[in-house]
Amino acid sequence: MTHSAELVLESTLSFNYHFGKVMEELNKQLDFIIELDRLKGVYRQALVKSDKNRFENSAEHSWHISLTAQILHEYAVENVNISRVMSMLLIHDIVEIDAGDMFAFADIKDHKEQADKEIAAANRIFGLLPEEQYLHFKQLWLEFESAKTIDARFAKAMDRVLPLLQNMRNDGGSWARHNIAKSQVIERNKYLEGLAPQLWLYVCKQIDIAVDKGWLRNE
Amino acid sequence: MTHSAELVLESTLSFNYHFGKVMEELNKQLDFIIELDRLKGVYRQALVKSDKNRFENSAEHSWHISLTAQILHEYAVENVNISRVMSMLLIHDIVEIDAGDMFAFADIKDHKEQADKEIAAANRIFGLLPEEQYLHFKQLWLEFESAKTIDARFAKAMDRVLPLLQNMRNDGGSWARHNIAKSQVIERNKYLEGLAPQLWLYVCKQIDIAVDKGWLRNE
Repeated sequence: MTHSAELVLESTLSFNYHFGKVMEELNKQLDFIIELDRLKGVYRQALVKSDKNRFENSAEHSWHISLTAQILHEYAVENVNISRVMSMLLIHDIVEIDAGDMFAFADIKDHKEQADKEIAAANRIFGLLPEEQYLHFKQLWLEFESAKTIDARFAKAMDRVLPLLQNMRNDGGSWARHNIAKSQVIERNKYLEGLAPQLWLYVCKQIDIAVDKGWLRNE
Repeated sequence: MTHSAELVLESTLSFNYHFGKVMEELNKQLDFIIELDRLKGVYRQALVKSDKNRFENSAEHSWHISLTAQILHEYAVENVNISRVMSMLLIHDIVEIDAGDMFAFADIKDHKEQADKEIAAANRIFGLLPEEQYLHFKQLWLEFESAKTIDARFAKAMDRVLPLLQNMRNDGGSWARHNIAKSQVIERNKYLEGLAPQLWLYVCKQIDIAVDKGWLRNE
C-alpha cells in the first residue's frame, strides 16, 4: 500500500470510529427520549377540569408547573435560576414511569417505600443516557428531591402550589374527594413561606376560603 | 390628626396601594396559569404508544419536546440558548387553546387560515398576563413562528423530529394512518440540515427505513 493510500485508510477508519461513537451516544439519547413517552400514561389524583374532569397525567403536569415557575419566579425574594428550575420540573416526575405516582397525602410509610422505588427508577431511566448526561440529570433530580437549594425549594413550591390553584377553581377537586385537612395543605405549601412571601400570603388566604367552602377539613 | 398619625396613615395607604397592585398582577398571572389547563384537552394526530395508542395532547407534547431539546442541543453546530429554546417550546402550542391543532400535513390554504386564528389566540391568551410578560411571551412565540433565529430554528427542529421518532417506534404511526409521502417528511425536518448535521443524517436514514417498511409513500 502506498503512503497516501495508508493515510486515506487511516483517516477513513478514524472517521468511522468517531462517527460510530456519535451514533452510539445518539441512540442512547433517543432511547431515553422515547422512554419518556411512558410518563404520559402515569395518572395523578389531580383532575383536568377543562377535559371532562379526567385524571391528569404526570407529563402534562410537568409542562404546566414548568410554565408556572416561569410566570411566578419574580416573586421569589432570593435569586432563582429559572433555567435550572425549569429543567428540574421537566424531569422531576420521570421516575414515576417505574415507580408510579403516589398521592400527595398518602401515609408516611408509603412515602418511604416510594422513595426507594424512585431511586431505583432514577438509576434505570437516567441510566439510559450517556454517562455525562446521566450524572447531570440524576444530580438535578436528587437536588430537587432534597429541596435544600433555593432552586429546588422554588421548584418544589411550584409543584405544590399548582394543585391548590386547580382545586380552588374546581370545587375543591382532589382535596374534596379525599377529605383532606387544612393543616396538610399548609404543610405541603410551606416552601413558599419566606421564599415568596406574597405567594405564601395568597395561598394562606385561599386555604381559608377552601375551609369556608367545605372543601378542606378545618383541622 | 397629629403628624405621626398622618405618617402612619400615609404609609398604610402606600402599603395598601402597593399590595393592591401586586395582587392585581398576581391575579392576572394566575388566570393565565389556570387557562393553560385547557391545552391538556387539545388533541393532536400523534399517538401515545405507551398509553393504549390514544391521541397525544399538546400539553404533554410540549413537555416532551422541551426535554428532547435539552438532551439534543449539543448536536447544534451553532450556539443554541437552551433556556430560551425550552421557554419557546413550552409556550409554542398555547395558541391551540383557541385555534385548535392542525395536522402537520394539512392543505396550504388551511395553514393560512390557521395562522390568522393563532395570532388572535396569542393576543387573547398571552394578553391575560401583565403587560411586560404579555410582550415577552408574545415576542417569543412570534420568534418561534418566524423560525429565523438559531434558537427558533432549533426549537422548530425539535417540534418536528419528535413525531418522526415516535412514528418510527410505532409502525409508522400518524404517517401510515394518513398516507404521508417521504418528501413531506423531509421538507418538515429540513431545519436540522446545516444546523445539526448528525441529527439530519440520522433523520434521512430513518425516512429511508420508513419507506422500505411501507410507512411512507416513496415520493
